[in-house]
Amino acid sequence: MDSLLQHVSIRNFKEDPVPEELLEQLLNAGIRASTTGNMQWYSIIVTKDAEMKKKLVPLHFNQNVVRTAPVILTFCADINRFNLWCTQNIAVPGYDNFISFFNAATDALLVAQNVCIAAENAGLGICYLGTTIYNAPEMVTLLNLPQHVVPVTAVALGWPAERPELTDRLPLKAVVHNETYMDYTSETIKDMYAAKESLASSVRFVNENKKETLAQVFTDVRYKKPDNEFFSSKYLELIKEQGFLM
Amino acid sequence: MDSLLQHVSIRNFKEDPVPEELLEQLLNAGIRASTTGNMQWYSIIVTKDAEMKKKLVPLHFNQNVVRTAPVILTFCADINRFNLWCTQNIAVPGYDNFISFFNAATDALLVAQNVCIAAENAGLGICYLGTTIYNAPEMVTLLNLPQHVVPVTAVALGWPAERPELTDRLPLKAVVHNETYMDYTSETIKDMYAAKESLASSVRFVNENKKETLAQVFTDVRYKKPDNEFFSSKYLELIKEQGFLM
Repeated sequence: MDSLLQHVSIRNFKEDPVPEELLEQLLNAGIRASTTGNMQWYSIIVTKDAEMKKKLVPLHFNQNVVRTAPVILTFCADINRFNLWCTQNIAVPGYDNFISFFNAATDALLVAQNVCIAAENAGLGICYLGTTIYNAPEMVTLLNLPQHVVPVTAVALGWPAERPELTDRLPLKAVVHNETYMDYTSETIKDMYAAKESLASSVRFVNENKKETLAQVFTDVRYKKPDNEFFSSKYLELIKEQGFLM
Repeated sequence: MDSLLQHVSIRNFKEDPVPEELLEQLLNAGIRASTTGNMQWYSIIVTKDAEMKKKLVPLHFNQNVVRTAPVILTFCADINRFNLWCTQNIAVPGYDNFISFFNAATDALLVAQNVCIAAENAGLGICYLGTTIYNAPEMVTLLNLPQHVVPVTAVALGWPAERPELTDRLPLKAVVHNETYMDYTSETIKDMYAAKESLASSVRFVNENKKETLAQVFTDVRYKKPDNEFFSSKYLELIKEQGFLM
């Protein structure tokens, strides 16, 4: 529990490698996660090779965290293996659709979180790479992913070379609803985001980006509508190309 | 780590309630999970009320686990709160698209897994309810979810009234690929699924369902193509209705 409460993303790693045996322990903890119908609709691609990492770095927009991490784990929704098993067992698989992709993506994400928690528990640091879904088609090519396999997230893994402060969170009551959804008023929104807005780092973001409000840093700089639309089309197209929107 | 390795889904709970303070601890551990840009694009709906649970049970196909669990947590992708915050801070949100939904769904699933791990660590039992995405539109109505909120999973939570055996998993090498995806041959598939097929429970499933192979139990009984197609349309339609496929 304490380990969960102390989670921070690590973006600078020492050069020390992650021992193979330890990595195997983390992955074994990963695959104990709940999985839809115990079908294990996921695969994990381990990147440790320097040449492969060099090719992966630009796909994650050259983030420093990817360059310094000794291990990158790419978690994929994968029904390819299950389909092959069905076909060679005179069973006709019916998984070329969105709900199957979504179940597989869910499986992959729960495994990823288990691996991260096991890693942090062993003193390693982790950082999720949200960039994975932005350049997923390029990863399909680089990692040689067949039909019915789609990257859904990736994690940088290594020994921490920094110890950042805990990041802020909204008060618990902002995200928890009892029995039914209690929609927000302008008053409750103001109240729930007040602490976040007043953080020194938030004030700095606003100033550095020459914006009027913190929200504008998100909408105009960090997560912009045109980018979101571009990556939405790109990812949906990949899901289709990989055989999940038949 | 040990707690991760010992995970089993619990489908029978004691009547004892989950103390409010403990639940709050679990949820607090939940929201420490990594979240896209620290935007916390999720909400958690807590169902404890007997009348609400009675209405939720059929939406989860009357599973015993839902009837006996003292607490059901429905994890939702939620950009409604963030949109409201943007709008009242003279920022124009651009999150009515698929990639934003997927980021929000990812956020929600990582929180869910954190809560589950914290719960098991406290001696509670959990069971994911994959049925959530099958009847998500009905849950939107029941739980009063506004635009830009979509249920992505739910978890039944309570004190275990059973202690099932660990479930089987494929050998680790079946789901882990080094550097690039190593596609399977009929030989490797046969090898990787051999232990699963020979389990007493698998043999029983095949016989009970009068099938020739275990794979057919999945394709013809448990996860059928017509069902998958029906629920794919239904869930995609909901994602659209809730404002994520503009």
